[in-house]
Amino acid sequence: MTESISREEARRRTIRMLEQIGVVLTEEEKAKVEVTDMGLGELEKSGLQLITYINTDRYCAKDLVLMPRQTCPEHRHPPLSETNPGKMETFRCRFGKVFLYVEGTPAASPKAIPPAGSEACYTVFHEIELNPGEQYTIPPNTLHWFQAGDEGAVVSEFSSTSDDESDIFTDPRIRRLPD
Amino acid sequence: MTESISREEARRRTIRMLEQIGVVLTEEEKAKVEVTDMGLGELEKSGLQLITYINTDRYCAKDLVLMPRQTCPEHRHPPLSETNPGKMETFRCRFGKVFLYVEGTPAASPKAIPPAGSEACYTVFHEIELNPGEQYTIPPNTLHWFQAGDEGAVVSEFSSTSDDESDIFTDPRIRRLPD
Ligand SMILES: [Zn+2]
Ligand SMILES: [Zn+2]
Repeated sequence: MTESISREEARRRTIRMLEQIGVVLTEEEKAKVEVTDMGLGELEKSGLQLITYINTDRYCAKDLVLMPRQTCPEHRHPPLSETNPGKMETFRCRFGKVFLYVEGTPAASPKAIPPAGSEACYTVFHEIELNPGEQYTIPPNTLHWFQAGDEGAVVSEFSSTSDDESDIFTDPRIRRLPD
Repeated sequence: MTESISREEARRRTIRMLEQIGVVLTEEEKAKVEVTDMGLGELEKSGLQLITYINTDRYCAKDLVLMPRQTCPEHRHPPLSETNPGKMETFRCRFGKVFLYVEGTPAASPKAIPPAGSEACYTVFHEIELNPGEQYTIPPNTLHWFQAGDEGAVVSEFSSTSDDESDIFTDPRIRRLPD
């Protein structure tokens, strides 16, 4: 086993990947890049790096960065009120490849497999492959997870308001920690 | 006077500018790039090029492209219902320079001037200069207009739902025409 990389190294790699594909960040934004292992302690396998550009009570925009084969664990965005059916997300791939899994007919030969040891916490396998310029919109309250291909990935996320605390993860060990 | 460029040439330039800064578009998206002169017939001076990535009943994301010194005319996004105070927009500069004008204390020496012949239709001069990586959020129902610097500009727009028909332009000659 390789030793897990540090959050600080993940943050540096994230900034480098964004710069390489032409994303310009201010110094303040670089300092605000988030790295989360969702409390699982295996960042290279399970986790996510991201920068939030804007999150208002109406909409949200982020760039998500995944290291090679890193997986964002299965979760859904539940209804929050009478008028809010839950977060709706559009993922637009900008670099690399993303294998996105949602509810629906499972892929016969999925191109990504859940992280070893966490298989029980992955239950949906309808596969959407996103290459640069391709995008997919996930309806509210729909289970989903995603994994980068062998080069990692950069994904722009356009969505309704983001309220991470309300996300429901399939893996009961996951707590979404603030940085 | 130089002859005005054609819509088709503006569309080609737009795709080239996006490609140059690393934005990947699918062939379907290239075909959907919009060019609008707002009916004023002077595209190089007044107008906008754009690609809409997603526009749902909850959020919207576009990339806007401006040719050198091209101006998007003054307008506001009015309230649409009891629960919708009007479109809220975040402009994030990705290439070039944008001079954005909103309601508030007017700039003593504005860095952009309204297109010749249309001066009467520009009434707000509080200046915000956006360079790559910088962004600004315009509250609903607030008058605004913007002009690119000498190299043109690419601006990502993150917003609530876009409903162009309801936009209110200061210039009474403007009709927002579908392509
Ligand atoms: Zn999600
Ligand atoms: Zn506007």
